[in-house]
This record gives sequence, structure tokens and C-alpha cells, in this order.
Amino acid sequence: MAQIRSKRDGGGDPMPIELLAAPMLKTGPEDVAFKVLYCGVDHTDLHQMRNEMHMTTYPLVPGHEVVGVVIELGSEVKKFRLGEIVGVGGIVGSCGECSSCTSNIEQYCSNRIFTYNGIYKDGKPTQGGFASAMVVHHKFVVKIPEKLAPEQAAPLLCAGVTAYSPLRQFCGSKKGLKGGILGLGGVGHMGVQIAKAMGHHVTVISSSDQKREEALEHLGADAFLVSSDEAQMRSAQESLDYILDTIPAVHWLEPYLSLLKLDGKLLLVGAPKSLQFDPVSLILGRKTITGSYMGSMKEAQELLEVWAEKGLTSMIEVVKMDYVNTAMERMERNDVRYRFVLDVAGSNLHE
Amino acid sequence: MAQIRSKRDGGGDPMPIELLAAPMLKTGPEDVAFKVLYCGVDHTDLHQMRNEMHMTTYPLVPGHEVVGVVIELGSEVKKFRLGEIVGVGGIVGSCGECSSCTSNIEQYCSNRIFTYNGIYKDGKPTQGGFASAMVVHHKFVVKIPEKLAPEQAAPLLCAGVTAYSPLRQFCGSKKGLKGGILGLGGVGHMGVQIAKAMGHHVTVISSSDQKREEALEHLGADAFLVSSDEAQMRSAQESLDYILDTIPAVHWLEPYLSLLKLDGKLLLVGAPKSLQFDPVSLILGRKTITGSYMGSMKEAQELLEVWAEKGLTSMIEVVKMDYVNTAMERMERNDVRYRFVLDVAGSNLHE
Repeated sequence: MAQIRSKRDGGGDPMPIELLAAPMLKTGPEDVAFKVLYCGVDHTDLHQMRNEMHMTTYPLVPGHEVVGVVIELGSEVKKFRLGEIVGVGGIVGSCGECSSCTSNIEQYCSNRIFTYNGIYKDGKPTQGGFASAMVVHHKFVVKIPEKLAPEQAAPLLCAGVTAYSPLRQFCGSKKGLKGGILGLGGVGHMGVQIAKAMGHHVTVISSSDQKREEALEHLGADAFLVSSDEAQMRSAQESLDYILDTIPAVHWLEPYLSLLKLDGKLLLVGAPKSLQFDPVSLILGRKTITGSYMGSMKEAQELLEVWAEKGLTSMIEVVKMDYVNTAMERMERNDVRYRFVLDVAGSNLHE
Repeated sequence: MAQIRSKRDGGGDPMPIELLAAPMLKTGPEDVAFKVLYCGVDHTDLHQMRNEMHMTTYPLVPGHEVVGVVIELGSEVKKFRLGEIVGVGGIVGSCGECSSCTSNIEQYCSNRIFTYNGIYKDGKPTQGGFASAMVVHHKFVVKIPEKLAPEQAAPLLCAGVTAYSPLRQFCGSKKGLKGGILGLGGVGHMGVQIAKAMGHHVTVISSSDQKREEALEHLGADAFLVSSDEAQMRSAQESLDYILDTIPAVHWLEPYLSLLKLDGKLLLVGAPKSLQFDPVSLILGRKTITGSYMGSMKEAQELLEVWAEKGLTSMIEVVKMDYVNTAMERMERNDVRYRFVLDVAGSNLHE
């Protein structure tokens, strides 16, 4: 098996990612083995490659939005077939016994095992989807609906479900809600489409006017709000039921809290170091700041069905494996609309 | 009628509060006129007297935890009788038409009229309970249950309902929840008793060990946690469903967020200038920071019934009107357990 690995802490240019040979993992009785077709590229991959979270073990095989075709099934796996298209997201294991696991929100299990840079119970490191093949326990594998192109499905497995989960959790199935999407990147562009599919009125909130046309024409948002325009912000005060805040950098929350109605919710999915707010805003409007982490396997499967059924489109740029370092550089300067997806199978991985 | 008023912006000692004569307001057809018996003393009164919120109009008549006996009723008021004991809290008016008003959460009406330092629709200033009598629209008057001593009822009308409302709103009627009460002052000491009455397991969180006995023996808390003791805090991690945070000063939220379980809630009722948190705590635990403002008339009435029915006791120090300036000074240095209540009717207000 071939893998694209980051061998060391490079700390910058050039990207320390190289092609290496690796032994194929054995398919256990509860495992699904699949040939990787496509894999999304996420900011976390870059942060992990550079050890910016001070927890990377090298060599590292990134990739946690993985779509593939089943090539082998463990003897006890009944829900998949050979040749079926499947997907894997951010985690490949959890304890199975805690209240999060038994409530089908295993992403909150404190013993969750990350898809890469994690450790299996037997001590082996986990390795992600920048590789020709993967072996994953069937509980952490979803079916990709037939109607959905595999490359389209890839970014749903982390970016998509990261937007979907808080909207499901905190907005339920209420129609007609007025929602804001703050930040139009990998997660945000899916958030717009998911919120629209849920029947919400969606306002994209952006720091400049640049993405107005794209938001309104291509993503189907109902309104566009420029956060640096004080008059626009003032006129939108107390107009939103929620804001999905995807900004990964430190930002003062006040301008956004002021956009929320009574009982409105700010849903954080980006993770800057620290955030500040004026408690009077929360108190006088009984407003809420909350957070949400990725999504569950159940939610990922639901989202895939919704995406296929409604004929929604992820906006992606498909590139070959040898472009990965350039893709990382471009992603870092937000030069992608809105997600790179690696064409793994089409990249002739040999060493 | 006599009032105790703050005539000017004194900015410190001596407290600028003096006895003055004032004409009695006319009782309108929908009004209740009552002779004031008792009135609680709150930090807000002091902040307003000193114009620390830069919104005080002098002369100011503070007091918004007012209990009295009905002396006159407007022709259209059916729900009260002459001689009945009644109460008034933080607001005496609202628009009556917005969604907050029609949902019985009129404290969130953006046109709410504060009990003092507010302006009635006809332009007249509102004046609080540091006075021999008050006239208030019947919608903003509650009945004090017969079983309840009037001086006991006073602090429930603001401090009490400020603790009760978020617990009702965010915890519903779930029994067996594990709650924390952060800060043992006017609001906190009622929070402990209210949470216990709701069937919760209650931990008082305090910066030192000083209040341990009082919390456990007198207020009936189940546990006591010293926030400056790292070992204690570590062993209590992820153990609480909610924390009622009554601290009015700036504090770093992280140690308290870490005490919350998955989906746990930090309920803010104190209003420091700005608060800071690590969003990762919210995201990885789907935790919530929210706020709540006083309580509704409906909740105030409910709380009074609960207090009477369960035989709960507000911890108060009843003082005469001529002690008010000393009481303010003592309150400022937290030298009161836990609330001063002015014995207005027993103070011989004459000028």
C-alpha cells in the first residue's frame, strides 16, 4: 500500500509531505477494507502536519474525509457489500460504552480514536486517507448513496457534518428559522446549503462584499450582510434565530450577538484560542453561545442522504496527489472555493 | 407620602440619600396602590444611586423588591383585595404587544419600564420602594402568599426570581440534575434553596472554605467546592449539568466550564463588563454559555408559591430606614448574610 505522509515537523515551506510505501493493515472480523478514491483536504490536516497542536507523531498520514470502494469485508460485517462506495470521517473508534457512545454521539466519547494521529486500543497508530487503501471498523464507515458522486461526498464527511450537526441539535426540525452563516469557507459554504435544505432563511455574513454574488447566486443564500458595514449591521440587529460561526480566528463576538433575537444562538464550530463577549448581551436577550464538534456517524449518514436526495453540490476543486503541497499552500491563503479533494485513485500511487 | 431619595451624584461617602416629602401618585383604573411594608436592598440600587451606569436621573427613589399592603384599587382591578399583601419587582410596565410580552416573559420587552429611574408612557419618572407608598399597574403586582412573612418575600422579587428563572428555563422540571451555584450572595443563597427545592443535587462553588458550613448546614447544599483548590476542581471535572454563575466581577470562565458535563450549561446572571472563554471547551463538550435577566411576573408568582409551600427561608437582615446608608456601605463590602431588607413601615417616615 502507498501512503502520502508527513515525515517530520517542517514548520513551513516546503511542505514535508512525501510518498512512502506501507504494509496494508489486516482486515479484522468487524472491519471494512476499501481502496481510497477521493480524500478531502482540511485545515486540520495542515495544522497536524506542522504539529501546531503539539500532538503530532511522525510519520503522519493525514486525511479524514475519505471515500473509497469496498475491497474486503470482515466475517461479521453484514451491512456492506464488496464494490460498494463508502466513507470515513474524523474518527475510527470510540469506547462503545459511555453515555455519548450509547446515545449515538460517539464524537463526544472521551476515548474516541481519531482517523489519523490516533492510537488504536492495541497501540497501533491510526493513519488517514492520503493513502491507496484503508481498513476501518464497520461502525465508523458510512454508505455513500448511489446518486452521489464520490468526490462530492468527501467534504461532507467532516466539513459538511460539522455544519449539519449543530443545526440539527440546536434548531431541530423547525422550518422558517432565520439563520446566519458567518465565514464562507469549507464548512460555511455547506452550512448555507444545509440550512436552506432545512427550510431556513439564510443570511451570509462576510467581512467584505466580495462573496456576495457567489453566496446569493451559486449557494442560494437569501441575504448577504457585510460585517464591516455598520449601517447594515445596525439594521439587521435582533433579526436572526442563530448564527453558525465558522471563523477559526480570534474575533470579538459582540457584533454577532447583537444580530441575534431573544433566545438566539451562536453556534461555534471554529476553534480560535480564546473568545470574548459582553455578558449583558447574553443576559438581556437570554442568548446562548454554544459549540459543536464534527458530527456523529448517524448524522453523517443522514446528511449524505439529504445531499443526494436534494441534489445539492459541494463546491470542490479536485486535484491529483502530486499537487497536495500546492493545495495546502493555497488552502492556507484561502485560495480555494471551497474545498480541495484529492483524486487518490487517479494519482497512480507507486513507490 | 415620604420617600427616601438620592438627590445627586455623590460618587462615594457619605451616601447621598435623604428623606423627602412627595405627592402621592393618583391610582388609575388599572392600578394597585399599596403602603410599603418592606423593601430589599440590592447592588443595583447602589450602582444607580451613584450613577455608575451613567443613566441615573436625580432625585432617585431606589427599591425594587417591594412588599406592601393594598390601600386602594383601580376600578378595573379584580384580582386583588384591599388589605392584601402584594409585591413589586424590577419592572412596572412593558409594551404588552411584543412577542416577549405575549409570551409572558415581559422582562425581555425592549420597552419595559423599570421600577425606578424609568419613564412612564406619559413622561413621568418611576419611583421605587424606598417610600411610604407606591402605585403600580396590576399586571406588575404579585400576591404574597399568606403563609409567607412579608419581609421574607421581599428578596424573592428580584434576587430570588433572578435565580429561579434560568433554572426553570434551562433545566425544566428534570429531577436529579447536578447543579453548581457559583457565588454565595443575594442571588446565590436563594439559588441553592431553589435548586434543592427542584430536586437537584447542589454544589456550592466558592473561592475559599469560609462559607462551607453555612452552605452545607444552613442552606442545605449537598457539596462544597473550593475553586482555588486545584485538586478539588480536577476531581469535580465534567460532573455538573449546570452552573448558576452569580459573580458580578470579571472572571475567566475556563475552570467552571471544565466542571460541566457534555451538554452542560453555564447560566450567567451577574453582569461583569466582559468575559473570556476557550471555545474548544464549548466545542468538545457541546457546552453552552447563556444568560438570564430577572424573571417574569409569572415566575415571580410561582416562586412565591414554592417558597411558601416548601417553608423555605430567605436569609435577611431587617433594618430601619435610617440605617440605609450604613446598609449600603456594608453591602458593598459583602458584610451581609445575604440581603438587607428595609423595614419601611416600621421606620416612621415623616418630614
